[in-house]
This record gives sequence, C-alpha cells and structure tokens, in this order.
Amino acid sequence: MLAMEAQEHRAARSVLIVGAGMIGTSVAMALAERGHRILLDDKDPVNLSAAVRVSGGAAYAAEAVDLAVVAVPPSRTGPVLLDLLRSGAAAAVTDCASVKAEPLRVVTAGVCAWTDDERPVAARTVAYVGGHPLAGRERRGPRAARVDLFAGRPWVLTPHEGSSSDAVSAAEWAVRECRATPVFMTPAEHDRAVAVTSHLPQMLASALAGQLEHEDDHVLALAGQGLRDMTRIAGSDPELWSDIVTGNADAVAEVLDRVASRLLFVAGGLRDAPPEVAAEVVRALVESGRSGRQRMPGKHGESPRVYRAVPVVVPDERGQLARLLGDAAEANVNIEDIRVDHAPGLPVGLIELYVAPDAEETLSRALALRGWTLTSLETDET
Amino acid sequence: MLAMEAQEHRAARSVLIVGAGMIGTSVAMALAERGHRILLDDKDPVNLSAAVRVSGGAAYAAEAVDLAVVAVPPSRTGPVLLDLLRSGAAAAVTDCASVKAEPLRVVTAGVCAWTDDERPVAARTVAYVGGHPLAGRERRGPRAARVDLFAGRPWVLTPHEGSSSDAVSAAEWAVRECRATPVFMTPAEHDRAVAVTSHLPQMLASALAGQLEHEDDHVLALAGQGLRDMTRIAGSDPELWSDIVTGNADAVAEVLDRVASRLLFVAGGLRDAPPEVAAEVVRALVESGRSGRQRMPGKHGESPRVYRAVPVVVPDERGQLARLLGDAAEANVNIEDIRVDHAPGLPVGLIELYVAPDAEETLSRALALRGWTLTSLETDET
Repeated sequence: MLAMEAQEHRAARSVLIVGAGMIGTSVAMALAERGHRILLDDKDPVNLSAAVRVSGGAAYAAEAVDLAVVAVPPSRTGPVLLDLLRSGAAAAVTDCASVKAEPLRVVTAGVCAWTDDERPVAARTVAYVGGHPLAGRERRGPRAARVDLFAGRPWVLTPHEGSSSDAVSAAEWAVRECRATPVFMTPAEHDRAVAVTSHLPQMLASALAGQLEHEDDHVLALAGQGLRDMTRIAGSDPELWSDIVTGNADAVAEVLDRVASRLLFVAGGLRDAPPEVAAEVVRALVESGRSGRQRMPGKHGESPRVYRAVPVVVPDERGQLARLLGDAAEANVNIEDIRVDHAPGLPVGLIELYVAPDAEETLSRALALRGWTLTSLETDET
Repeated sequence: MLAMEAQEHRAARSVLIVGAGMIGTSVAMALAERGHRILLDDKDPVNLSAAVRVSGGAAYAAEAVDLAVVAVPPSRTGPVLLDLLRSGAAAAVTDCASVKAEPLRVVTAGVCAWTDDERPVAARTVAYVGGHPLAGRERRGPRAARVDLFAGRPWVLTPHEGSSSDAVSAAEWAVRECRATPVFMTPAEHDRAVAVTSHLPQMLASALAGQLEHEDDHVLALAGQGLRDMTRIAGSDPELWSDIVTGNADAVAEVLDRVASRLLFVAGGLRDAPPEVAAEVVRALVESGRSGRQRMPGKHGESPRVYRAVPVVVPDERGQLARLLGDAAEANVNIEDIRVDHAPGLPVGLIELYVAPDAEETLSRALALRGWTLTSLETDET
C-alpha cells in the first residue's frame, strides 16, 4: 500500500517548459530524468532543438499539460505568462524570472483587459504561482544546462493572494522534483531580498571592474586575489542584467542609494574630517562588514562555520594537486573548500585547503610528514 | 671566477627587521632561509620571541646592519623610519607599509627638524627607499608568517628623489632574496594604484557585507556564490584597514566618490528615468565592468587568459576530491583553478575544474569515462 502510494506520488506528469535557455533546459533535464513528459517551446528554433536533444523532450504543439514553467528573460515573462493563462492549456503555471513583483503586475494588469472573460479578475490568475530558482551561472543557452543545476539550491515560490492551493502544490512539486529546496515568500519580500543578495553585488562588481577599464597596465599588475574575487561576476551579460535590474528598479535603487551614501560618507570623512574622525568612520564601515559577513550561512545551509586554512606551496606541475589531495584523504581529513592562489611570475602556486578547526593540526602534520612545504602549524586568527 | 662572483653576490648580509607581525616575520623567514643574519625588533615581547623562534633570527640589540626593513602598521611606519635614519645603524632602510606617500612625508618633515644634523635635508634621507610587498593575507601575527609569502608576488619599490642608488640596490636585493618581483613606481603612482586595486575593493566588500548585518535570515538564505566572493575580504581587520585607508585618504576618497557617483546615477535612472533609459544606464554599467574585468592579468603575470570550467558533481565524502583530481591528472590535463561550489541542504558539491580551452573536451570525456557526473561537453560562452 505504501509502495503504491509512493508510486502514485511519483506518477509521471506532463510539463511544458517555455524558454529553452540554460535555466529552462536544466528544468527539462531534471524533470525528464524523473520520468516526466517534457514539452519544450522557444521562439529560437536552434535553442529549441538543442534543448529537445539534451533533455529527451519533445517540441510543444498545443496540448493540455499539468504544469507550465516559463523560463524566459524577466521582461518577457509577464507577457508569456499572460498567453499561457489565456490559453488555459496548463493546469498550473509558474515562472523562473529573477524578479517577482513585475511579472505579477503585468499578469494582473493583463487579465483585467480580458473583456470576453466573464470570471472575476482573481479567478483568471488562480493558476499562477511565481517562482525563482537561485541557481545562476555565468553561462547561457541550452548547452550550458545541467541536470543537477538546482540540486540543493533554494527555489523561491511567491504565491499571490489569488493563487490556488492546487497551483501552489504543482509548483512546489516541480521544485522538489528538480531536487531544489522550496522557500516561500511574498513577491515584495523576494524582490527586496534579491536586491541585496544578488542585484547589489552585481552592480558593485560591475562598478568596481568598470574602474579598471582605463587604468594603466602597471596598476592592473598589482591586482590581488581580493580584486579578482570582487570582479568575478563582472563578466555577466549586460542585456540580461539590464533586464533583471530594471525589473526590480525600486528595490535596487533603494539599496544602491544606501550603499552609495555610505561610500560618500566615508569619502567625505577622508577628505574633510579630522584624522581621528576619518579613522573612526573607516573603522565603523569595516566593523559593520565583519558583522554582516558573519551572518552568511555556511555550507549545506548549516549555520555559519569557520574553517581553518592550511596553506601549501605546490609546484605548478601536472598531478601535484591530485597528490596533495590524495595525501590529505589518507590523513582522513575532509577538505571543505580549496583556494588556488596563483603566484604571478613563478612556477609555484599556493593552495589553501580549508578544514574543520579540529582537523587543522592533523592535516598540517600529515602533509609536512609527506614532504609538503607549509609553514606554521598554528594560526592566531580565524 | 664566475662561481666566486656568484658566491660574493650571495654573501650573507645582516638585516634588521622592525615589526614581528605576519609580514615582518615572513621577510625574516625568507631571508634566513637564504643564509642571512636576521635581527628582529618588536615592542611586543611575545611577538618578538615567536618571530625569533620561527625565523631562527636573534633579538636586535643596537648594532650596525646592512639593511633595515620596517614592517609596522602604516601610521607607525614614518616615526620608526625616522628613528632608524637618525640612529644611522642601517646602511639602507626600507619599509613594507601599504601606503607610500604618507611615510615619506613624515620622514621628510621629521628630518627637517634635526637641527643638530649639519647635512642638507636631502642627504639625511638618502638611505631610505619605500617598499610595499603585495602579499596580504587575512591573518595577522608572526604565527601566520610563511617563508614563501612573497614568492612570485609583486613588491613595489618607491625610491624618492633623494634615495641613493646604494639604498635602492639594497632594497631591490632584499625583494629578490624574498623571491618577489620588484616593481618600481613613484609613491604617488603607488598610492593611486592600490587605491583602485586594493583599498576600493575592501571598502566595497565592507559596504556590501554591512548591508547584510541587519537582514532577516530568510534574506541571507538566498546568498549565492557571487555574494560569497564579494564579501570574502569583508572579514578583514578594522583597525588595520582604518590605518591603511586614512594613510591614503585623498586617493581613496577620489575613487570612492567616482564609484559612489556611478551608483547614484544608476539608482537615479532606475527611479526617475523612462524604462528604456534606465535599461541603457544599467547596460552601460555592466558593459564597462566586462571591459574592465577583461583587463585583469592572468595567472603567473601572463596576459589575461580565459579558462574553461568543467563542472563535476562530487559526493561530499572523504577522498572524492582526490580521486577526481587523480583522474584529471591521469588524463594529462593541467588544472589551472578549482572552484568548490557548495550545495546548501544536499550532501553533494559541485566542483568546477578550470582548464585551458583546448583541454576542456579531453578532461570532460576522461572524467565521464571514469564515471563522474558532468553534463554538457559543449559550452556556448567563455
């Protein structure tokens, strides 16, 4: 009986995915792997056929489906959702746009204009539940899709006041089938949250990297790991980001104002305040950053955890890294993170292996015994 | 004859290091390893004895030395340099402060006040050459020192107009003995460069992380790798950074103003401009960031080079990483960088192995053959 229930729970459903980009194709692959019937649609025939091929789905030709997942750029999401709701082809409709208030606004405004639909406005949007999988990559297109893209990632769902419980269940089902973790928020909460955690970092990375555009080579030669880390996401796509940020204009403007004011305050202190006041202004900024940094959740969604770095000097030769990690594994130590720190001009690299605090000494000793160059066994700070 | 010259060139020198923190102790270790006589001084007896122990040097008791290297916080650097120049104990004097105009200003102002010194002011500062090794870490203190800290790193030297060629040679000698790469600049050039490459990133990371301080947990749960990268250096020491930034106040204020103005402009566009103008404003910001990002030098100081990522899903179990890298090494592929991407909530991690573009397919196929889970063999973007 239990087995039958489980079987029924796992019954194959039909899912239409509109938008055969990296996200849509990854959804298709994840759901196809679970045995569901996948139908794909995209205005670009090349992307569509690539997505059909990698997911094993079929090109969509008007038919009724259990769920439609819209995975098109934010500015196109509202209109595509409207068409789907109008057609009634899908029992439930969700989307993957990284902003949530704006598509809902477009949907609500759009359904009001359906003069031939006798139902109340709210009834015309019952099938819709907003969604946003937090699994971006720097790459685009169906060939960048991954079946595991959403595994263990948060996937925000933002039911609106009129969303039916059936629609919410269907959206949540898709999230779990993609092995993501559903997180429920209102559209406004979502948009404020991603303004801080995603849109603001992107704007700061772009603004920082933009400062390098016209610098001399001798300035750029001084770039260290901090600057590299801070500009990694600056390689993102301008078109996509313009779409995302203008789709969350108010929330992004607010956090940009806040950060810019803080920076101007620091600049003003450095220029005009007595030295001890300027020092206090900078100190307060760095202190608040330390506090904020400590609030970041740790690996696997656990509470924040401090790892200790064991720095090892590694010759830049094939196989050295494997040998190092093999030696670490033989020491029975779990490596939580790795940082590869390139040394400009020399054929050696510095590898920092991050381990739980109680494993630091074990690993250091084991590696030293095996002939690796590392320095102090003690550290005086986290 | 050549051997003798080489021998003479490598003759042991006596070097006084003032300041037994992470940087000073690393200098001591690097020079001690090359067989030089190391003398250490620090006002903190605990740090001093730790530095003496790990470097194999001796505590300094007034004697003549070939070179003095000052490695104390920026605000204390000028006064310490002045004392050394006054005593005449060192034939040459350099420092490691991460700002260069301010210590020189203090030195120049200080020597003018020596009314008992008959020499012209310029002659009193001939022994001094400013320096700044670019090898910061997030850790402090002598126990965080590493003999290889400077290997392959840029080490800026900023001779002033009165620096003697002997003093410049001595400073450059120390840089090379520490296996760093000397880079010559004026103090003003240096300060402007690090304002952009180091001080600005720190201020932005702190300002960004500071925004997280009072956010709800549900907001922080949406943090992705981008935010993590952007806030890594926000863990830095407020006291040290207050010292650095106030020691480079004008240059930092200028770049902070520039970035803050840009951010305010974007915020203004998002709030007040017509949508198509706002979109263009955001697009231009992200575009300029892309251009700037492409100017970053690559590994080992080579011209920028694009690596390709091969994403592999790795069970979070001991030894898996070693097995993965062993398999990569067997495929005869050189791994240029690694990114460990934690999946919150699930016992798997995503490891991205970065390789030269022509090695991407070789590695992907080899890993797939060995049973690793990775998705597309093709990518459609760099």
